[in-house]
Amino acid sequence: MTEIRVTQRRGWRGGVLGECCAEFLGTLVLIAFGTGVVATAVAALSQSGRGSAAFVAGGDWLLITFGWAAAVTLGAYVAGGVSGAHLNPALTVALALRRGFPWGKVLPYAVAQIAGAFAGAGLVYLNYADAIHAYEMSQGIVRGAASGAGTVGIFVTGPAPYYGGSFVGPVVDQIIGTAMLVLVIFALTDERNQPPKSNLAPAVVGLLVAAIGMSFGANAGYAINPARDFGPRLVTWLAGWGSAAFSGGGYWWVPIVGPLIGGPLGAYVYDFFVGGVLVARGEPPTRDVETGGRVVKEEPVVA
Amino acid sequence: MTEIRVTQRRGWRGGVLGECCAEFLGTLVLIAFGTGVVATAVAALSQSGRGSAAFVAGGDWLLITFGWAAAVTLGAYVAGGVSGAHLNPALTVALALRRGFPWGKVLPYAVAQIAGAFAGAGLVYLNYADAIHAYEMSQGIVRGAASGAGTVGIFVTGPAPYYGGSFVGPVVDQIIGTAMLVLVIFALTDERNQPPKSNLAPAVVGLLVAAIGMSFGANAGYAINPARDFGPRLVTWLAGWGSAAFSGGGYWWVPIVGPLIGGPLGAYVYDFFVGGVLVARGEPPTRDVETGGRVVKEEPVVA
Amino acid sequence: MTEIRVTQRRGWRGGVLGECCAEFLGTLVLIAFGTGVVATAVAALSQSGRGSAAFVAGGDWLLITFGWAAAVTLGAYVAGGVSGAHLNPALTVALALRRGFPWGKVLPYAVAQIAGAFAGAGLVYLNYADAIHAYEMSQGIVRGAASGAGTVGIFVTGPAPYYGGSFVGPVVDQIIGTAMLVLVIFALTDERNQPPKSNLAPAVVGLLVAAIGMSFGANAGYAINPARDFGPRLVTWLAGWGSAAFSGGGYWWVPIVGPLIGGPLGAYVYDFFVGGVLVARGEPPTRDVETGGRVVKEEPVVA
Amino acid sequence: MTEIRVTQRRGWRGGVLGECCAEFLGTLVLIAFGTGVVATAVAALSQSGRGSAAFVAGGDWLLITFGWAAAVTLGAYVAGGVSGAHLNPALTVALALRRGFPWGKVLPYAVAQIAGAFAGAGLVYLNYADAIHAYEMSQGIVRGAASGAGTVGIFVTGPAPYYGGSFVGPVVDQIIGTAMLVLVIFALTDERNQPPKSNLAPAVVGLLVAAIGMSFGANAGYAINPARDFGPRLVTWLAGWGSAAFSGGGYWWVPIVGPLIGGPLGAYVYDFFVGGVLVARGEPPTRDVETGGRVVKEEPVVA
Repeated sequence: MTEIRVTQRRGWRGGVLGECCAEFLGTLVLIAFGTGVVATAVAALSQSGRGSAAFVAGGDWLLITFGWAAAVTLGAYVAGGVSGAHLNPALTVALALRRGFPWGKVLPYAVAQIAGAFAGAGLVYLNYADAIHAYEMSQGIVRGAASGAGTVGIFVTGPAPYYGGSFVGPVVDQIIGTAMLVLVIFALTDERNQPPKSNLAPAVVGLLVAAIGMSFGANAGYAINPARDFGPRLVTWLAGWGSAAFSGGGYWWVPIVGPLIGGPLGAYVYDFFVGGVLVARGEPPTRDVETGGRVVKEEPVVA
Repeated sequence: MTEIRVTQRRGWRGGVLGECCAEFLGTLVLIAFGTGVVATAVAALSQSGRGSAAFVAGGDWLLITFGWAAAVTLGAYVAGGVSGAHLNPALTVALALRRGFPWGKVLPYAVAQIAGAFAGAGLVYLNYADAIHAYEMSQGIVRGAASGAGTVGIFVTGPAPYYGGSFVGPVVDQIIGTAMLVLVIFALTDERNQPPKSNLAPAVVGLLVAAIGMSFGANAGYAINPARDFGPRLVTWLAGWGSAAFSGGGYWWVPIVGPLIGGPLGAYVYDFFVGGVLVARGEPPTRDVETGGRVVKEEPVVA
Repeated sequence: MTEIRVTQRRGWRGGVLGECCAEFLGTLVLIAFGTGVVATAVAALSQSGRGSAAFVAGGDWLLITFGWAAAVTLGAYVAGGVSGAHLNPALTVALALRRGFPWGKVLPYAVAQIAGAFAGAGLVYLNYADAIHAYEMSQGIVRGAASGAGTVGIFVTGPAPYYGGSFVGPVVDQIIGTAMLVLVIFALTDERNQPPKSNLAPAVVGLLVAAIGMSFGANAGYAINPARDFGPRLVTWLAGWGSAAFSGGGYWWVPIVGPLIGGPLGAYVYDFFVGGVLVARGEPPTRDVETGGRVVKEEPVVA
Repeated sequence: MTEIRVTQRRGWRGGVLGECCAEFLGTLVLIAFGTGVVATAVAALSQSGRGSAAFVAGGDWLLITFGWAAAVTLGAYVAGGVSGAHLNPALTVALALRRGFPWGKVLPYAVAQIAGAFAGAGLVYLNYADAIHAYEMSQGIVRGAASGAGTVGIFVTGPAPYYGGSFVGPVVDQIIGTAMLVLVIFALTDERNQPPKSNLAPAVVGLLVAAIGMSFGANAGYAINPARDFGPRLVTWLAGWGSAAFSGGGYWWVPIVGPLIGGPLGAYVYDFFVGGVLVARGEPPTRDVETGGRVVKEEPVVA
């Protein structure tokens, strides 16, 4: 088995470009389903006669958190076998810092992730342009005006009013949310721990993102991923929201910088309290019998 | 192990007719649970005193999307071991185009799928005839009249009013939704990628259909399957809705043609960005140890 | 491996009495969680200040269907390794008719199931007596009077008003619902098909029961199990509802007889369209590598 | 394989301190997601404009029960490979009584669990201080006054008003809820039964906690875990609620004592009806092929 795996490694073709293709399509799927569910909850359900009102507590928050959770799971299945399905620059950086992911691939991955997020949000705009327009008409919203913020929120995240315009709280929120994300992902992919087998980790990562949305999502919309926020923001900038896409007092950098701090922080915390204990004990990684222990999937995450 | 599997192949009996039986029953289960949940949400919950109103945003959309998701998972488990559980002519065509599924089986499969959809919707009509009648009475709906559209929507899909009668938007919507469906199904069944093992792919395909409903369902009711719409439409045509079944300006062909375009498109996109990369790298398919690597299930989808 | 398994068989102790213990506890868990969620939705949430009103469409129906689904999954995990976790006389009879389950065990299993259902409902009554009393006070309900039907419905099922007192519709409803249940359970436990591995079938059976609730539950409360309805009905008879427990024009036999017809019907339909095809093809059962292919769990269902 | 495992055991480093690190971080994750979802449902959703009102029946109870379920699953994945992920003193005591878990580790584990719960709730307070403050302002709530009970309930559990101040009902409720928890956990980790494989037991334990919330949660908020209630209570005591944290007539001991009685009770019931039957039959534990049968994870639970 070992020799065969070595041969597989040598037979790899395409290298980082192939991996970037997968990160692109995986992030496209993530953001298409993710911003799609917000477009559905905010605009399309009510305008199509399939639902009566937007953003009802509980019910709709379940819809939005479930939609984003499924989005992450499905995006991870699309890209997993090629690139490890980071789909998030904050995770890519954390893996480079703590799991030996090559630094030279960080920028290409991030570019592919942002491009995929842009394409995914573009697809949602294409699909829901009529619904969003109808919603804006029905609510008297002028897109791109201050009052148009309501529909820009289909694509981009923003802070709760109780922060009063301060960015301290949202930055802390993004650090905490992304730290929780990466901390648990490190547990779910640590072969010395008790990770889901049968290639089911993507399903549990979806549950994790649902949990972050349900528990750490209300303050600032749980971007917890620079590509998730920035790619769709570029779409709104081009699709008629104009400067409103980057308004909010220059908030756009918060869901970039917060996650890039929080991701590595979560990785360190996991390794300090759990990962390091497993290594200290000399626990061997448990290969997944079922998947034949293919190396590529685990390398970026565990090696 | 290899010899045994060859022997299994030679021992197959029944051929395409047995496969059509399975596609029939699997699609029956899919459509019975699927149209059943709409009958529940629209008519039966409120009339039975178990719920107060139809089509509330969020809550009910969750009910409908969860119901259809479970329907797909369960239908796939019923038919999977015999036919690969396509349950959808758009998937069958995509598999013929990109995975070597025999073209000679496409029409028999499609007929079986439509027949199963017809039978499943008929079962729901049988079960809920009293509830639908009571709902129509309570709302003053005359079945088959223009105002009867509300109950025909228990069985068939239709476009949102913001399209203003144009079919361009709904066709695009059906292309996008079905492309997402087939793209991710190709990932979930690609043995060179990271597919769910332990025979759990049907559960993740259910999650996928939930995600499509939550994110790409509001425009036109996410038929994304010609059999899903056409089979139940025939039931309404026979069960008292008459010409209203095919009204809406001749919309009935949209959920047939859109999916037949979108399915192959999604297959090509997956293969371009991910599937082709895995082949180029020379990744070998990973057999599922647990299931003994039975060939029949994978052949239609992967071979 | 074979010899070891034979030795295991010979080493079995306890026989049918041990199996009845497991059926008792498994059904207790099923009914405790199941009637517990209805007590929560109808009475306890609103009276505890944790929720505002009972039986809201969508939201609450999700709560009830999810609760019953989890109940089935958990009950199945409790009893599975000992008895196969039938938890339902209709399933036991279907297994006896179509899978060689010993007829001599049918009555002991059914008695254990009804006793477990009685105990589970009794536990819920013990836990929620105060909440139910508070709810009755707040609504002016006199327990056991005709107007007390609202709280008897925490424990027992009943038909929708649109049946107008006729039992034909509810009997058909119970036949269809139970047929769907057994049909899909037969698929999920058919080792020649594509059943969930890694001991995850109970989770998918839970999904199945959720789907039946969402799609075939509104007409008559989806008992689809004689023990589920009759055991709790005995509790209400003893706990103050008196004759109201068996009122409704003598409806109590419907959720007994309907399932006992529907269960075998579903088994026959599965075997005709799918199970028989797999046997005809000579497909061998695929043993579950992970679980060491333990025989006891599969015997009642597959052998 | 056996020798290698023995070597692993000998190679263990860190001992109970490493295990306490894992229990600390696992419980932190559990309580951060758990109290986070209540903060979201009660205060943050409505104040952030992402939801309209707190504690709506059904919808919100789903949000809260799903959030706590995911919290348990994720906490279990974080700590599982090191300590077995008890995360609950009542489970630790039950394992000591019935599964040979060393009594000498019970107190260290409990301290680590309470410390983790304190830290997790502290993190939620840090993240939601602004939201909770805004909610208190909007509702005219004075924190720490009698009327401030509404926000202390974000962190601590309390009894329903229908108990009228008596602790008998809540103690019974906590005994029943924790007995159900431990009873089913014992089934889910009994290698002689039919436990989830592929390291998926944490997901089913999450479902179990969802079921307890949905079916046995409304009476007293389903603490079912002394650490879950006491750790966050200390946070509220320090964070401005003061004596209100321990008010309610001295209720704080109920979610400590009830679970410590109920947990062992559930263990005995499982062993009487099911676990003992499996042992009597001589069923051998089925090792998990996939995970390489690592011993550490199972030892605290099964050995």
